[in-house]
Amino acid sequence: MSGSISPLAPKTYADMPPLRGVRMATAAAGIKYKNRTDVLMMVFDRPATVAGVLTRSKCPSAPVDFCRANLPGGVARAVVVNSGNANAFTGRKGRESTKMTAEAAAKAIGCSEGEVFLASTGVIGEPLDATKFSGVLDSLAASGTEDFWFEAAKAIMTTDTYPKVATRTAALGGVTVTINGIAKGAGMIAPDMATMLSFVVTDADIPAAVLQSLLSAGVGPTFNSVTVDSDTSTSDTLMLFATGAAATDGQKPVTADDATLDGFRAALNDLLRDLALQVVRDGEGARKMVEITVEGAENDEAAKRIALSIANSPLVKTAVAGEDANWGRIVMAVGKSGEMADRDRLAIWFGDVRVAVDGERDPAYSEAAATAVMKREDIPVRVEIGLGKGRATVWTCDLTKEYVEINGDYRS
Amino acid sequence: MSGSISPLAPKTYADMPPLRGVRMATAAAGIKYKNRTDVLMMVFDRPATVAGVLTRSKCPSAPVDFCRANLPGGVARAVVVNSGNANAFTGRKGRESTKMTAEAAAKAIGCSEGEVFLASTGVIGEPLDATKFSGVLDSLAASGTEDFWFEAAKAIMTTDTYPKVATRTAALGGVTVTINGIAKGAGMIAPDMATMLSFVVTDADIPAAVLQSLLSAGVGPTFNSVTVDSDTSTSDTLMLFATGAAATDGQKPVTADDATLDGFRAALNDLLRDLALQVVRDGEGARKMVEITVEGAENDEAAKRIALSIANSPLVKTAVAGEDANWGRIVMAVGKSGEMADRDRLAIWFGDVRVAVDGERDPAYSEAAATAVMKREDIPVRVEIGLGKGRATVWTCDLTKEYVEINGDYRS
Repeated sequence: MSGSISPLAPKTYADMPPLRGVRMATAAAGIKYKNRTDVLMMVFDRPATVAGVLTRSKCPSAPVDFCRANLPGGVARAVVVNSGNANAFTGRKGRESTKMTAEAAAKAIGCSEGEVFLASTGVIGEPLDATKFSGVLDSLAASGTEDFWFEAAKAIMTTDTYPKVATRTAALGGVTVTINGIAKGAGMIAPDMATMLSFVVTDADIPAAVLQSLLSAGVGPTFNSVTVDSDTSTSDTLMLFATGAAATDGQKPVTADDATLDGFRAALNDLLRDLALQVVRDGEGARKMVEITVEGAENDEAAKRIALSIANSPLVKTAVAGEDANWGRIVMAVGKSGEMADRDRLAIWFGDVRVAVDGERDPAYSEAAATAVMKREDIPVRVEIGLGKGRATVWTCDLTKEYVEINGDYRS
Repeated sequence: MSGSISPLAPKTYADMPPLRGVRMATAAAGIKYKNRTDVLMMVFDRPATVAGVLTRSKCPSAPVDFCRANLPGGVARAVVVNSGNANAFTGRKGRESTKMTAEAAAKAIGCSEGEVFLASTGVIGEPLDATKFSGVLDSLAASGTEDFWFEAAKAIMTTDTYPKVATRTAALGGVTVTINGIAKGAGMIAPDMATMLSFVVTDADIPAAVLQSLLSAGVGPTFNSVTVDSDTSTSDTLMLFATGAAATDGQKPVTADDATLDGFRAALNDLLRDLALQVVRDGEGARKMVEITVEGAENDEAAKRIALSIANSPLVKTAVAGEDANWGRIVMAVGKSGEMADRDRLAIWFGDVRVAVDGERDPAYSEAAATAVMKREDIPVRVEIGLGKGRATVWTCDLTKEYVEINGDYRS
């Protein structure tokens, strides 16, 4: 499998513009991989504001604990990310490792450890040798450049088959600002529990509290609406930084998460969605992308739980892999979600083909028409619950023999 | 795949004794399969008491709705079970079909429709042609025999690779009583959503309310503690009947679910567990059986949720398939369960090999010893949470390429 790029990969990569106020550099520290970069350092020229969303796992990694402690400060000067080792379930050694890395980064930049953010992805339970960082951070801090986004995305890959980048612009406070983002992995898709990591930076001038408000709202319908295998990582980390460089263009100050941010909010959410979908499209063994929309549920939360019940069902995902229009399994997944549903009001569509209505198979059901939809690379599924106005969309991929192979055979 | 018996199948089948008060017969009605029996009729000579546990799905099948309506009556004279079609998501036609079948059964026996119980397993969403039953029920009612348990178990199979039977005896009210049971399928493991069905009969004389109390308590640590793929069927049905024939031996009357039933309760729970484990061992594509015990959780419910989070994790199940002692994925599954857990108190064992303790890899960790456990057919996993006294055990199987093949390719 390794070496072959997902058939669902983007046909072209976004052309990533430099972003004023942040410089990046990468190194090959030999943490696990050979002959590739595995450490990324981002340095902010002036203190950036920062917001973050971290895994809900009760057993988070040491870097997640470290970031959670620093986020209330709201100020970032440096980010250090490594692939090859997640520094998760590493106990006291794990905490010592984050401390040592943060000290080295702070010394290299001339900032406090509270202004450093860390993320690690890779094997779980293996002690991470932080001395591998100490030699490289000084030179990374000195050599960073603004035009380095694509290389940055490559350095944080684990079993990803392609780097994930996205960029947007928005009007804000009388000027045009830019948002750049990179991501890796999805859910717990990668061997040894690699992780969903994403780092987004804007040159807008936005206070940390407003940034957090934007990010917390934006993550729901984007990163928190994708699933590859229902397995939540110990290390999921999404961070948003604002360098404030646009203030020199005359950007009017932002004071609250209000309508003046509508354009920025839309651009940010669009970028988050773009990155999240790139992550699903690189799901391990994925051959098909499925967009599941649930409408007419009791409320939006119920709709999302039903949609995720469908998206995480092994029987739904294997049917998609087999190009089988097996709508009975959709009914099953609705039923097991625990949310209010009335069999006799359910309707189900694959693409534009309605396959079930009013609690039974559509009278005009055409196996050929439904199967034609299943043969597509991108498969839209829509479920009408018929009870209320709740609505949600989630994205997932199929469950293939390659997924089992990647996750079962990789040590053999 | 079809035709080959699960490598986890029992080496010998239980020798099923006749059970006084119930007669059974099967027929090949051609509902879906050719050249095999697909209808089972059980007839009780005298009205039996009955208890049942039915799927929690919000989209249950028509037979589940039918049984749910009849259970409060507490009296059974006949049971009709078919394989090949689940009569689920079949709307008005489905209700008509159950009504027609119950009418035919009631007429054949000379009882009311409220004393008939129905179960169907197989394809979802296809109308079930009840006229296929009408021709056979009269003759089945007339031809039933007491010594027919193994054939009964075969008639209700769908993708099961072996019939599932179990028998126990117990002392009750001064006499010895017998309990016989059959089962099929597991969770939603079978193509087109076949189903877990199980029918248990005893010759003991036990009132319906007491029977229900016994069954409701017994299902938790047995059938409700097994999972193949986390997909809950629309049709899950477990029923327990008491023919009362032992009263003629002088069995003292039972009036409440109290200590006089301890022997019976133990035998019943042991039989339910036996059948439930047979179901897991026939999980689609299963090559390994995993027993997951969680101890030291906040309470028993929390322990069970953590155990099921581990048992349903695709990454844990693929690691088992690959004989990979990937305990990091156990940590992940504990963390995502949502239950209280403290990374620094966790300990994990594969068999007798402790692989993690105090929030990190066991200092004495031996990859060779852990891998030796993973090579077994039956793999015990134990997780100590270190917070309280909550305890639960659940059983699952591995996730193999064959599972994907069976559920993805079967229509092609």
